[in-house]
Amino acid sequence: MLEEAGYLLERGRIALYDGGEELNLREFLKRASSLIPNFELRFLVYKNIRDRGYQLKAGILDFRVYPRGIKPGEGESKYIIRVLSEREPIDITIPGKDILIARNLKKRLLYAVVDEEGDITYYEVKQKEMRGSLPPLGTDISAKGDLLEERVIIWDPFILNKLNKSWWFGRLTDEGRRLQLSFVESAYLIEHGSIEVLDGDGNVLSLERFIEVASAIESNFYRKYIIYRDLRDKGMVVKTGFKFGSHFRVYEEMPSESVFHSRYLVHLLTDDHTARLPEISRAVRLAHGVKKEMVFAVVDESEAVQYVEISWVRL
Amino acid sequence: MLEEAGYLLERGRIALYDGGEELNLREFLKRASSLIPNFELRFLVYKNIRDRGYQLKAGILDFRVYPRGIKPGEGESKYIIRVLSEREPIDITIPGKDILIARNLKKRLLYAVVDEEGDITYYEVKQKEMRGSLPPLGTDISAKGDLLEERVIIWDPFILNKLNKSWWFGRLTDEGRRLQLSFVESAYLIEHGSIEVLDGDGNVLSLERFIEVASAIESNFYRKYIIYRDLRDKGMVVKTGFKFGSHFRVYEEMPSESVFHSRYLVHLLTDDHTARLPEISRAVRLAHGVKKEMVFAVVDESEAVQYVEISWVRL
Repeated sequence: MLEEAGYLLERGRIALYDGGEELNLREFLKRASSLIPNFELRFLVYKNIRDRGYQLKAGILDFRVYPRGIKPGEGESKYIIRVLSEREPIDITIPGKDILIARNLKKRLLYAVVDEEGDITYYEVKQKEMRGSLPPLGTDISAKGDLLEERVIIWDPFILNKLNKSWWFGRLTDEGRRLQLSFVESAYLIEHGSIEVLDGDGNVLSLERFIEVASAIESNFYRKYIIYRDLRDKGMVVKTGFKFGSHFRVYEEMPSESVFHSRYLVHLLTDDHTARLPEISRAVRLAHGVKKEMVFAVVDESEAVQYVEISWVRL
Repeated sequence: MLEEAGYLLERGRIALYDGGEELNLREFLKRASSLIPNFELRFLVYKNIRDRGYQLKAGILDFRVYPRGIKPGEGESKYIIRVLSEREPIDITIPGKDILIARNLKKRLLYAVVDEEGDITYYEVKQKEMRGSLPPLGTDISAKGDLLEERVIIWDPFILNKLNKSWWFGRLTDEGRRLQLSFVESAYLIEHGSIEVLDGDGNVLSLERFIEVASAIESNFYRKYIIYRDLRDKGMVVKTGFKFGSHFRVYEEMPSESVFHSRYLVHLLTDDHTARLPEISRAVRLAHGVKKEMVFAVVDESEAVQYVEISWVRL
């Protein structure tokens, strides 16, 4: 492996020749970079992991890494590592595929992200099963709501209390006399037949029409709604994550005096096909700072949602 | 002002009639929302500010707000407030214009951002003068560098030490025998005649050609470089902000034992004409968590850079 050759050359432990000519490190780096795509990034990561006291080998992604103190041949590798540049957008289907590979090999999956100055951040990438403990929506709920510009207002005092207290839908205002529902909440309740939403002229909006109205205000609305619905159907409490810069903050149960903070931040990767690593870095950093788990949601063409947890790790 | 009318109606302090018919709150909200663009958002913010014990009036943006305990007519207003929806992208020239208005009126400028659930976050928006204490680049610096894929390597031991120790350019590797420069750093040093960068065939790259190469790897490169150059020209140390999810972290002087942390995070608003509020919220939240000031950079057509500091405030 050329990364290993460069590492040993840099330490003066080997000499390298190309067509009889001895190569210094400068010549070696130029030639290796022109031969191997991504050599520069791979070399930086290789050196960094070796310097931390691990052995590594070429692997199915970029490298496989052995536990500290274990040499290749003496035992099993523990991680598989993909090397990424901060600047290159990645196809959002890649983490899902890498997770499958790691699972089949029974290894942990790490992404080594090299920033523009050559610093490396390691992220662990895992599939996340999302599951909460809330009961399904009751079939006895039926209310009318008014569509204002960006929200739906429910006025029925019995229903609004039930929706808010049992499932934490919406936000009570005016001392509990009014419930403001967000668009995703409204769409969910329309789809479940729990509310009818009236426009300014008193006409009932179908789910399809409601989604059109919401999508005109928020271009990403439908894909956000798919995630909202999926998490709610799984029994979770899903509220806006705006204050944390994510689409949603998510609770496994109704918050109580003892468990008040949401456990997850869930973010839809917004571009259709690619994710930008600075966006991921920022979200993971922020979630870490507020002690939540950062979960990215990827929606495929059949509207199935996959959840990928990404967290900082120290190698 | 209809917001005030709604507020008093909700509290039962007035009755409202439209064509002889008394309006309940539900009817009032429907009619006001159809009459006034953004009424719903303005009403939420109006109520929130009144509930916090401030008086407010319609103003040049959305509202002007009086200091606590001061009524309109008794004294001067303190803030001017623009009401924004989390979901609507804003034109990136707007903060600059609002800052001018606030400065002329000698008021503080606040943005009230309403999220999809009706919660409101207040941000203070200020112009920021960026200034550091580093000396300009010496004219005695002249070295050659190799362009690898995403970095430039300097091998001259005297120059690399000077660049790194006096201005904190690049990153030393291999026990100080090599200096890795990022693309923005390399472009800056090329433009100042301090280095010549050679491609794999040994040809010197002009600044223009170097920018082309860098832009092929990072589409936003040129505008990022304009900001980098501007901050460096102002005597600041500018390093990548990748770990903080921003373009740059910025120091007013060379970090020392006593002053080690960067004071600012600087982020280029990436879309050409609009900024998305969730992106701003996320950056401000993150900067707050790491005790840095969040500064957004806006580049105009003449390549002038304006710096806008946005910070969380509690009203």
